[in-house]
Amino acid sequence: MPLQIGLIGTGRIGRIHAETIALHLDEACLSTVTDVQLASAQQCAARFNVSRVACDAQALVRDDNVQAVAICSSTDTHARLIIDAARAGKHIFCEKPIALDLASIDSALNAVEKAGVKLVVGFNRRYHPNFRRIKELVHTGELGQPHLIRITSRDSAPPPIAYVKVSGGIFLDMAIHDFDMARYVVGSEVVEVFATGSALIDPAFAAAGDVDTAVVVMHHENGAMTVIDNSRQAVYGYDQRLEVFGSLGVAKCENSFPDSVVVTNADRAISQKPYFAFLDIYRQTYVDEMRAFVDCIQKDLPPPVSGLDGWIPLVIGLAATRSLREGRAVKLSEIG
Amino acid sequence: MPLQIGLIGTGRIGRIHAETIALHLDEACLSTVTDVQLASAQQCAARFNVSRVACDAQALVRDDNVQAVAICSSTDTHARLIIDAARAGKHIFCEKPIALDLASIDSALNAVEKAGVKLVVGFNRRYHPNFRRIKELVHTGELGQPHLIRITSRDSAPPPIAYVKVSGGIFLDMAIHDFDMARYVVGSEVVEVFATGSALIDPAFAAAGDVDTAVVVMHHENGAMTVIDNSRQAVYGYDQRLEVFGSLGVAKCENSFPDSVVVTNADRAISQKPYFAFLDIYRQTYVDEMRAFVDCIQKDLPPPVSGLDGWIPLVIGLAATRSLREGRAVKLSEIG
Amino acid sequence: MPLQIGLIGTGRIGRIHAETIALHLDEACLSTVTDVQLASAQQCAARFNVSRVACDAQALVRDDNVQAVAICSSTDTHARLIIDAARAGKHIFCEKPIALDLASIDSALNAVEKAGVKLVVGFNRRYHPNFRRIKELVHTGELGQPHLIRITSRDSAPPPIAYVKVSGGIFLDMAIHDFDMARYVVGSEVVEVFATGSALIDPAFAAAGDVDTAVVVMHHENGAMTVIDNSRQAVYGYDQRLEVFGSLGVAKCENSFPDSVVVTNADRAISQKPYFAFLDIYRQTYVDEMRAFVDCIQKDLPPPVSGLDGWIPLVIGLAATRSLREGRAVKLSEIG
Amino acid sequence: MPLQIGLIGTGRIGRIHAETIALHLDEACLSTVTDVQLASAQQCAARFNVSRVACDAQALVRDDNVQAVAICSSTDTHARLIIDAARAGKHIFCEKPIALDLASIDSALNAVEKAGVKLVVGFNRRYHPNFRRIKELVHTGELGQPHLIRITSRDSAPPPIAYVKVSGGIFLDMAIHDFDMARYVVGSEVVEVFATGSALIDPAFAAAGDVDTAVVVMHHENGAMTVIDNSRQAVYGYDQRLEVFGSLGVAKCENSFPDSVVVTNADRAISQKPYFAFLDIYRQTYVDEMRAFVDCIQKDLPPPVSGLDGWIPLVIGLAATRSLREGRAVKLSEIG
Repeated sequence: MPLQIGLIGTGRIGRIHAETIALHLDEACLSTVTDVQLASAQQCAARFNVSRVACDAQALVRDDNVQAVAICSSTDTHARLIIDAARAGKHIFCEKPIALDLASIDSALNAVEKAGVKLVVGFNRRYHPNFRRIKELVHTGELGQPHLIRITSRDSAPPPIAYVKVSGGIFLDMAIHDFDMARYVVGSEVVEVFATGSALIDPAFAAAGDVDTAVVVMHHENGAMTVIDNSRQAVYGYDQRLEVFGSLGVAKCENSFPDSVVVTNADRAISQKPYFAFLDIYRQTYVDEMRAFVDCIQKDLPPPVSGLDGWIPLVIGLAATRSLREGRAVKLSEIG
Repeated sequence: MPLQIGLIGTGRIGRIHAETIALHLDEACLSTVTDVQLASAQQCAARFNVSRVACDAQALVRDDNVQAVAICSSTDTHARLIIDAARAGKHIFCEKPIALDLASIDSALNAVEKAGVKLVVGFNRRYHPNFRRIKELVHTGELGQPHLIRITSRDSAPPPIAYVKVSGGIFLDMAIHDFDMARYVVGSEVVEVFATGSALIDPAFAAAGDVDTAVVVMHHENGAMTVIDNSRQAVYGYDQRLEVFGSLGVAKCENSFPDSVVVTNADRAISQKPYFAFLDIYRQTYVDEMRAFVDCIQKDLPPPVSGLDGWIPLVIGLAATRSLREGRAVKLSEIG
Repeated sequence: MPLQIGLIGTGRIGRIHAETIALHLDEACLSTVTDVQLASAQQCAARFNVSRVACDAQALVRDDNVQAVAICSSTDTHARLIIDAARAGKHIFCEKPIALDLASIDSALNAVEKAGVKLVVGFNRRYHPNFRRIKELVHTGELGQPHLIRITSRDSAPPPIAYVKVSGGIFLDMAIHDFDMARYVVGSEVVEVFATGSALIDPAFAAAGDVDTAVVVMHHENGAMTVIDNSRQAVYGYDQRLEVFGSLGVAKCENSFPDSVVVTNADRAISQKPYFAFLDIYRQTYVDEMRAFVDCIQKDLPPPVSGLDGWIPLVIGLAATRSLREGRAVKLSEIG
Repeated sequence: MPLQIGLIGTGRIGRIHAETIALHLDEACLSTVTDVQLASAQQCAARFNVSRVACDAQALVRDDNVQAVAICSSTDTHARLIIDAARAGKHIFCEKPIALDLASIDSALNAVEKAGVKLVVGFNRRYHPNFRRIKELVHTGELGQPHLIRITSRDSAPPPIAYVKVSGGIFLDMAIHDFDMARYVVGSEVVEVFATGSALIDPAFAAAGDVDTAVVVMHHENGAMTVIDNSRQAVYGYDQRLEVFGSLGVAKCENSFPDSVVVTNADRAISQKPYFAFLDIYRQTYVDEMRAFVDCIQKDLPPPVSGLDGWIPLVIGLAATRSLREGRAVKLSEIG
């Protein structure tokens, strides 16, 4: 019988997961949805033939028809909902980040552990074929010992400044994906972080106490170093590239493009810029991560992205934030 | 109100169109399906929540709930079904080719014209972003006067020999897509064809009176020449590339690849081979062509691929077949 | 002791060979030069520290200090000079083509054979690393049985019409390089040729009885087919690409570019067009071919490009010319 | 009359410059050479038809026939020779680095200034077409305000450990090229440096007090940040790439390859690794830099790479070395 999933939060990312569960996964079904704006939940239910709209998240979590929940509401609600869902014995998919403070994450992870339910965190980029393949190349030793990892991660357009003010800053709301990626690809924990940055795109970032352009250098336990460069605005599109340099070779990947046409004329060769919207690049990853979530429940597998995988990037983000302020390398052991 | 479409033939391509209509087009709905194997039709109906399964194509064509039909049955049934559907006043989407003889196509097109319904032929490759963009570059004059078009069109695996024996041969069952592409991209009719070929992959092709490797050279009315090379078997994957060389420049496109990772080691650089399955490359084109079909009905637009567009590639294919036999250039005016 | 080479003809290509012999080959030395315009020969001698300027080609050929001659004068003088040099016991490097008629080539080759000297013909493109590597891939069987060879060969700018009138036409003055390349790469002789073309760039080509845009399709003895497309004018630069498709895979190469910079902005990605001048692409091939000439003398090796290699492309060119006129495939056995 | 150049030091780099001056520059001539190993100087003189071999550098510097000197001897002799040559009124080309301590450079630059001669420092990479073009794109504003510069600079093989012990370490002997490149491309001075690294290739580097893998992050006056990653050993070849990300777009360049052949078979696509030897990549830059040196003298232009351009990278290198040791960002103003 298909897994009955209840979805909390029908905003942009929630609707993506709704579509996946409703249309793309034979082994799961979307039984209930809810949202703080009930009209949004009703619209989503109508669009995907969902029979029930819960009046609120608590009702959904207690619903006996729901076997697993997908938490897609705002970040500040994640930890509380994880705890409630865990106590109700539901398996949990939760969008990243779990929380912006370590204590909240600790509480959530404890509840999950006590309840013995599965918790999967939504670091969807891990499912992109480029990154998955490079991870595999490191894992199988084809690149030898990893020495240097270069991650370029630039958004196509900056978020609203209102968001920046509450998001925890560039390291917690944006680079956190890259911290996860570095751990995922290298397969070795980060021990030290140096971060620096500037507000080069818009002084409003500086006014909000943040930077919009950043560089992070990290040392891993196995000796490898990761270098991340972030920008809030790459005018040419979403720029997500990764390179691993090891003792036996180097692996790198490119962005995705709407078409592969190259026009060469008397002046130059012209081709496409990368996709602008993250969905054009990552749509399939959302299908794959939801499938992995369902699989881990139905086949009793370890979570593909665990609670710990949600916890550590926050520690790195906090270390990076401190490093930015203090102009020095910060050890992870200094945090928390 | 969404367009009510009835689908005839629930084989591989039929199911692709069923999924598109059922899941991807808000402005259409799949009201009825049928197939000579009713079990197949029932399975398809169950998968996509289709309420009615017609007992046969005639019943479907006469069904008052059906406004348009999508003909995905075997080629030998196309012309007859077009005529029946046209007489029943239904708009028609028909998979290519309409028929393997010109007389049948003529009858079908006459019926369509008399009935005043829309007929759209399924040359799906026209909707691929690469080819669409190159067509546009020619159309807008960005490449100047087109001089040379190079089309590489190689299948990843050969069809069963049983199919080859009845398909009309490589020029009618395979190169016909490329003949359409040449007309589409150049925007000028073909006037002369030279074709040659060999059975290099499997002597069974020669035994079946066919070749498995072919080259076709065509002259267009506007002076441009198109060169097509075909192979029944490219072991590295589906190989579909196109290049237009004109007085102001050249445009070309590449295949699609599962990922963009490049590994460079002490020996060489290694990257992905192209996709092997045509669906990995063309899935979205089926959605776009069905949307264009629905659009042309609902907005009363000219068919994106007309009946004439189904007729001419057959003429070219027959001319190519004759050229192969006679070792000389054959004018299209010699055919039919 | 270095090989004493006398150079006949100090025009553009002659000066290229002069520079190679004078500056780049330790095992050879440029002992004498001559030209119908003695001033040109003197200039060349001064530039490269050549001690002797012969008053004419006959004097140079008879010069006891000369062990080998490099014939870089106009095509109509080649056969006569080969005969004279052979009779004088000199080894011979001769620019392509040896002659524009088969009888002249026959005489020249006979003289060479009788004298027992080495004759090397100047098909320099064989020495380009791209083509050399693809040849090797075919030769070692890495691509399996070759099925289709695609050669794109487009000049960046058309020659003067005056030249076209005496050159023998596009197949003898331009495609002849590609005929050689097809034989070289495939390693199997051509048996049949179909050629077609148009004057699309400039009606003056038609007035001169020639075409400026051409397509040639050839069958090789081993079953492979070669497709060549030629244009007298690619506004974006010198376009020389080759692809071999075989039963085990495909190999292709790209043009050369002045730099590899790609700029991506909010509109598109922009990179370099290919080099415009043939020397930017082929300079090193001239060094390598002259070194191969010297080597084949000093180490008594077979000529890297033999007299027969000079003879056959002319036969193919004549067959192509006839095919263009008659609109049919022409067998090589019909020529000569 | 051609500029009379005397060359000091006929080791590897000296012979490269000797060849350039002797064979490639019409406007200059190699009048005298010398080396601490006179036999080496004599060999070089013989190879390039140089008439005079000076018994030592002092004799060469005092030689009235010499108008300019090219200093290619070991680093520890540079500053002294610059001073001597300047006092003798000779223009000076000096290989990088000028010295490993700031005081020596100061003395040398003072002598040059007092004498009013030209001094050009040998940062040859500036002349590579890739980097020159990217510099120009920044300079003309085509990329907008530069935000992030990424430099990858990895040697194909590590130097002998004996060299590492006296070279000043990875930041002074290797990254110094990249420090120059960052200044050159961005066009704005560096104000702060953070450096980190590890010995991952060979523990002998650690034993010599050095690292073999390093990351440097720099802030420029104009707000841009540069990230450099260095490795002593990229097994796949010499890896020199650069990317500039700005407010209006991004520019990046690739390595150079021996050929552009791509073979695709049933398993994968295979292409060339980059060149292994720095000369294959940079040969032409040595010609261009020597031409620029001659030009700046003959046309009285400002030095293309000035004494200051030799001084600042050393300051950056010293700051990087301190940062590595202290685990914090170091301001350039802390040095010297």
